[in-house]
Amino acid sequence: MTAELIDGKQAARSQRKLTTDRAAELNDEPALGILVAESDKPSRAYAKFLSKRGKKIGLRVDATTYPDDITPGRFAEDLSEVQQGVDGLLVMRPLPAQLDPAAVDELIDPRRDVDGVHPHNVGLLALGRPRFIPATALSMLRLLLSTGIELQGRRAVIIGRSPTVGKPLFQLLLSRHLTVTVCHSRTKDLAAVAREADVLAVAVGRPHLVTPEFVKPGAVVLDAGYNWDDDAGHELGDVHPDVAGTAGFLTPVPGGVGPLTTELMLANAVEAARGLAGLSTEVV
Amino acid sequence: MTAELIDGKQAARSQRKLTTDRAAELNDEPALGILVAESDKPSRAYAKFLSKRGKKIGLRVDATTYPDDITPGRFAEDLSEVQQGVDGLLVMRPLPAQLDPAAVDELIDPRRDVDGVHPHNVGLLALGRPRFIPATALSMLRLLLSTGIELQGRRAVIIGRSPTVGKPLFQLLLSRHLTVTVCHSRTKDLAAVAREADVLAVAVGRPHLVTPEFVKPGAVVLDAGYNWDDDAGHELGDVHPDVAGTAGFLTPVPGGVGPLTTELMLANAVEAARGLAGLSTEVV
Repeated sequence: MTAELIDGKQAARSQRKLTTDRAAELNDEPALGILVAESDKPSRAYAKFLSKRGKKIGLRVDATTYPDDITPGRFAEDLSEVQQGVDGLLVMRPLPAQLDPAAVDELIDPRRDVDGVHPHNVGLLALGRPRFIPATALSMLRLLLSTGIELQGRRAVIIGRSPTVGKPLFQLLLSRHLTVTVCHSRTKDLAAVAREADVLAVAVGRPHLVTPEFVKPGAVVLDAGYNWDDDAGHELGDVHPDVAGTAGFLTPVPGGVGPLTTELMLANAVEAARGLAGLSTEVV
Repeated sequence: MTAELIDGKQAARSQRKLTTDRAAELNDEPALGILVAESDKPSRAYAKFLSKRGKKIGLRVDATTYPDDITPGRFAEDLSEVQQGVDGLLVMRPLPAQLDPAAVDELIDPRRDVDGVHPHNVGLLALGRPRFIPATALSMLRLLLSTGIELQGRRAVIIGRSPTVGKPLFQLLLSRHLTVTVCHSRTKDLAAVAREADVLAVAVGRPHLVTPEFVKPGAVVLDAGYNWDDDAGHELGDVHPDVAGTAGFLTPVPGGVGPLTTELMLANAVEAARGLAGLSTEVV
């Protein structure tokens, strides 16, 4: 069997078109604010990338850098000031050590929380009435839906229990009526558990962890891995490319979950602007 | 094999002692407010029962009834008034049809939310820093811990995905490093999935759904079922008593999860009072 590759770039293009239309219905250009530590070069590069992407859909992206030795009190003030001038707010990680990540999440206005990290939004997702869904998890669901396979009653296995990917994806797959298992670093005989899956979703940040013996023939395999590799000159997934010989569908890396994730995060910013403007919003 | 029965009454007595000590450290007697619809006799009876239980630990329980045809606006006002005079607030379900359950959850002050239903608290639990944990799920975890078995890496299967039991229990078991599967009404071949479990937790409200062929020999079986049966003259669990011939440990019904649940809900009220008074609080 050779897996059908799920084209994340195509899905991203479709989403971009949708978001552009949604943004155009607003009276004012929507704006996404990004807070980045001064020395965090990868995050600054990503903010620049988002700014370019934003232009294409009519979304202004303002990146604000702050000094790495900022005090928590000053950080809170800066965040509040930035937040007042934008519709969506993204606080890039990692944070400097003196800033408590949990406390920072609570500073974000839940109505502007495009990353879906505020506890209120995390709770709304768990309660089945999501406001903002973390973009990587939503991208994985969308690409799964694009296969057109029947989901209800199928078995899903998620490898990875992070608050930003594995756990929200659990909620999304459960709401689609799959029977869902969550695995992690302490799981015993991981390959055998993974082989139970009709839908195998992987988000652990370990390049090529998942090899063909993890995969039930014909399964849908969703790979959120994004591990830069100097030798390859591009990122590697958490799933080995040989899995294409066993899976029914596979999201490639690069060109799978990643491109759609970016577009969905920007879409969240446009939906935040719509919500603040009192227009109807869309979640999934 | 004959299962060891896990004694929920004994666990409840120990908890009652702990809560009494915690309450005694407060300067003022803590208070739990309960809102009940006038015609809801079972909830009124439960409120009366809680009031008696509360007296034993030094917790005042105030039940307030409201007319079944109350407007949402008036309900919000009443709730706010009741809430200001108490440390913990419990809004009994079911609500009259004109009250939106999601909107009611958001009216509860998250610091007084002893049932753990406010989205903010649901999110905190999912993020691994719980404030209030829904008492039934916490009772199941506590009784599981009381068996002393090693949990890390073991497989758990939860039957039931309710926001008040199955989903919070998923978070609790995952945080203890089990590999966790959540099943529900759409799960195919439920008995076979359940048999994968070293720990099988059931909360669906279907009397005796789980029979011995659902159970791996030696497994721990936790039963949150509470189904009144007129013929039996007592409640029936979701687990058939014959499971005792296959399981290693079993929570009986009655006398298992239920009694400890009540004590943990009251304990949440005392912890709410401690939190509002600026004293240290305990979650698990």
